[in-house]
Amino acid sequence: MLTKRCDQTVAWTALQGHYQAHGRDLDLREAFQRDPKRFEHFALGAPEVFADLSKNLWDVATRRLLTELARECGLEAHRDAMLRGEAVNTTEGRAVLHTALRAPRGAAPFSDDVHGVLDRMLAFAESVRDTAASGIRHVVNIGIGGSDLGPAMAVPALDAFAHPGITLHFVSNVDGHDITPVLRRLKPAETLFIIASKTFTTQETMANAAVARQWFLDAGGSDADIGKHFVGATTNLEAAGKFGIRTTFGFWDWVGGRYSLWSAIGLPIAIAIGSDHFRALLAGAHAMDRHFAEAPLADNLPVQLGLLDLWYRNFFGFTSRSVAPYHQGLRRFPAYLQQLEMESNGKQVDFDGQPLPYATSPVVWGEPGTNGQHAYFQMLHQGTDTVPVEFIAVKHPTHAHADLHAKALANCLAQSAALMLGKTSAAALTEKAPTASATLDKQTLARHRTFPGNRPSSVLLLEQLTPRALGALIALYEHRVFTSGALWGINSFDQWGVELGKALCNDLLPRLASGDPAGLDASTAGLLARLRA
Amino acid sequence: MLTKRCDQTVAWTALQGHYQAHGRDLDLREAFQRDPKRFEHFALGAPEVFADLSKNLWDVATRRLLTELARECGLEAHRDAMLRGEAVNTTEGRAVLHTALRAPRGAAPFSDDVHGVLDRMLAFAESVRDTAASGIRHVVNIGIGGSDLGPAMAVPALDAFAHPGITLHFVSNVDGHDITPVLRRLKPAETLFIIASKTFTTQETMANAAVARQWFLDAGGSDADIGKHFVGATTNLEAAGKFGIRTTFGFWDWVGGRYSLWSAIGLPIAIAIGSDHFRALLAGAHAMDRHFAEAPLADNLPVQLGLLDLWYRNFFGFTSRSVAPYHQGLRRFPAYLQQLEMESNGKQVDFDGQPLPYATSPVVWGEPGTNGQHAYFQMLHQGTDTVPVEFIAVKHPTHAHADLHAKALANCLAQSAALMLGKTSAAALTEKAPTASATLDKQTLARHRTFPGNRPSSVLLLEQLTPRALGALIALYEHRVFTSGALWGINSFDQWGVELGKALCNDLLPRLASGDPAGLDASTAGLLARLRA
Repeated sequence: MLTKRCDQTVAWTALQGHYQAHGRDLDLREAFQRDPKRFEHFALGAPEVFADLSKNLWDVATRRLLTELARECGLEAHRDAMLRGEAVNTTEGRAVLHTALRAPRGAAPFSDDVHGVLDRMLAFAESVRDTAASGIRHVVNIGIGGSDLGPAMAVPALDAFAHPGITLHFVSNVDGHDITPVLRRLKPAETLFIIASKTFTTQETMANAAVARQWFLDAGGSDADIGKHFVGATTNLEAAGKFGIRTTFGFWDWVGGRYSLWSAIGLPIAIAIGSDHFRALLAGAHAMDRHFAEAPLADNLPVQLGLLDLWYRNFFGFTSRSVAPYHQGLRRFPAYLQQLEMESNGKQVDFDGQPLPYATSPVVWGEPGTNGQHAYFQMLHQGTDTVPVEFIAVKHPTHAHADLHAKALANCLAQSAALMLGKTSAAALTEKAPTASATLDKQTLARHRTFPGNRPSSVLLLEQLTPRALGALIALYEHRVFTSGALWGINSFDQWGVELGKALCNDLLPRLASGDPAGLDASTAGLLARLRA
Repeated sequence: MLTKRCDQTVAWTALQGHYQAHGRDLDLREAFQRDPKRFEHFALGAPEVFADLSKNLWDVATRRLLTELARECGLEAHRDAMLRGEAVNTTEGRAVLHTALRAPRGAAPFSDDVHGVLDRMLAFAESVRDTAASGIRHVVNIGIGGSDLGPAMAVPALDAFAHPGITLHFVSNVDGHDITPVLRRLKPAETLFIIASKTFTTQETMANAAVARQWFLDAGGSDADIGKHFVGATTNLEAAGKFGIRTTFGFWDWVGGRYSLWSAIGLPIAIAIGSDHFRALLAGAHAMDRHFAEAPLADNLPVQLGLLDLWYRNFFGFTSRSVAPYHQGLRRFPAYLQQLEMESNGKQVDFDGQPLPYATSPVVWGEPGTNGQHAYFQMLHQGTDTVPVEFIAVKHPTHAHADLHAKALANCLAQSAALMLGKTSAAALTEKAPTASATLDKQTLARHRTFPGNRPSSVLLLEQLTPRALGALIALYEHRVFTSGALWGINSFDQWGVELGKALCNDLLPRLASGDPAGLDASTAGLLARLRA
């Protein structure tokens, strides 16, 4: 559906020349001096999100060429094809319609199906939230990957909107050290388990579900009670029924795991924040969908971010991007983005299966600011590599501590400025450093206290972390990943890279009991022997 | 104290030749075929930790040259100088003696000081753990960076050894969305706050401590009660006294923040697991210290890991390392390592302040397996970049679910094997792929389902995640970071890179109130205006 892969365009060649001639030598400090309107020129508005992209290593010409690249690749047609429900997931022959999950009734494909399940799910969530009637105080979501990361990210993010009498827990890892401490603190009569697995066969989820079920029975729950305390976010009604589940919420093969928090997989979110807030989450995402669908490429925030990602990856050669949410509620957002971006675009062949001659998904990583400042920011400021940083801040907190909020904002702005401005040795030489060794040569100390600067960062600003704003923020990243993936010529919606490990695991599991090393590589055989010794 | 920087050695030049001639083309699958004893040749034992390093991109000659490099740099003398208490933190003129914190009585410098505080701290921890007498059910540690990441990592890691009646909470971020949901769930009479800040001036910690203090008073606590419900891990007795704190535990300027969990900063750990287990944690670290101090370089696990890091960073040019603990209790271990490694070695000048001509600290990142498998492992297997992976597994779980544990181990071994083995297009062509598009050309599908393989990984194996094993594991990483930092000629024990952002924050904070943009760059000024609009 794409017209061209990025490297087959005229714009790509032009960008190569532009990079050699100007791009690689761009100094942000000079760029701000040359263009007093640089902030305005690189400010972009989208629903619920304002972006300051002025402290990135690009100029107006770069943006024009990148935008031309997107046009030449046929990004708009590809986007429209996805939104219409064409099978843009070509290797699996599937449509990709997470946007339909948040469209108003009648506004997108499969509307009746989507709103049928949504209405039913939200009614169920409300019945759980009526704790006097339901008796439920704890909800445990058992799921992994896309059936975990979205809700596990969104529930703490929206803590200020959450039911005060219900605690959400997330069990994902097949490692038993995950579920064990969770169950230890719970009582069956107060607990609802959500088993989240499209197929109801996911190894980790089924293993944990079996442990939860046995725990429930061992603690005196009856077989009949299983139906009241376990529900499924699944399409496999038969397997769920055998488990004892009577309440299920389904979804469709056009909902990818990492794009599924808008579907029945969002049930834990709906229980936490209630149906009105959940609908606001969907509405925020839908508003971003409209922006992505309608805004001109040059003003289209997800498109411009995706282009910036390509610029950094394929021209500057940056290999990772650090995400720094200055909001503790977004502490799991980097982990969420790791799946969204790296599982979508961590590929090395194009749509046709041809090897790509350029780098694709970077590593995405980070911790909430200001914590990161007291950990790895040293490396961002004074390390040898350039790592673009993405700051996320909110104008209004959902708490009452204005003093703390001002400090969080001041830190966020200060770090972004410091990365760009740096500090010369000459400036360092004029300063006192109270902890410095008294015997150290002053020039040497100044060199230790020098910052190169010119390190790029973006600031994404939300009014407040409401359900609507969170929905828009997540959708922004989804479409950004779509953009870079499309230009790279990647199918961002399959994940063949998870297959091989699964197959080898199935081969190894019986060997842990039997000890049979036949056909194993010597390392695996050696480790197996050691584990059984 | 170091004889030479790595790039000034004969071994470095030899390694360059070796890399060009053999190193960069090493194929792990062929290497295992050539050497049936490769597993044994690259197996290394250290206290509590067994390491399989055979699936790394090196051979016997590489290791010999790297070990020679360490010798030529004078690593052993530098190590001994640190252990003796010489001021190896040259820019601050300080000794670096976290090893003294875990040495037996009389076995290291400052023993009387160390054991005096330790005895007193553990007695206090035991008094809190006597919940019938203390009335304490919740402990909130308020600290950031080194005063947070260690305890916040170790407490969940040792959950199986923890007091069942006391819940630990960690507040670090100055963002008020951190402390707000914590306090909402607590009662003052049942709560003990630990204010962890060496200077009792850390901005984030003091802001959060003030909020906690006010909350305590607002809820009916008296000024006199402050002394019972707030304690300090600090050396600033005067400031703590003004706050109302009467119980403090100190430490020394030779304890770096990121090396401080062994000191009074470990109080939350001691309260969680008790004094005997805390002493076991120290003993495990001490055992690793002895290994580091005494084992020949070729058999010295932290040294060999540090050399491998240098090999990957400076010869292969890998820019990040992914840490995958197959133990959910270690879910904060990657965040802990981010500070330990990136703050220690994220530098670009050597001891003399001379610019380094090579790359230093990589990005360290990761999530617990098997979660990562369902997220970013796609990129590790099929992305365009090579990211070395470090698997951490335990032979015996601290829970009773043998079935789950077998699955966790099988997954761990399978992923490590899959990264190395890969899958050819020819093999993919012979397999069924149930979700594949029926209309997709079979050859094209096979190319999508191809894995390049030859991607390196290490496996670190512990018998069980006991306090002793955790202590050894952390010390292993500390010394590994010392090794790579020393060879790079870096002072791994300062952190000048955190200064600039702090200064700019102090400048910006009043501007958030006044709106004064004088002298600000246009981006910061624009964001400031927007935040105040």
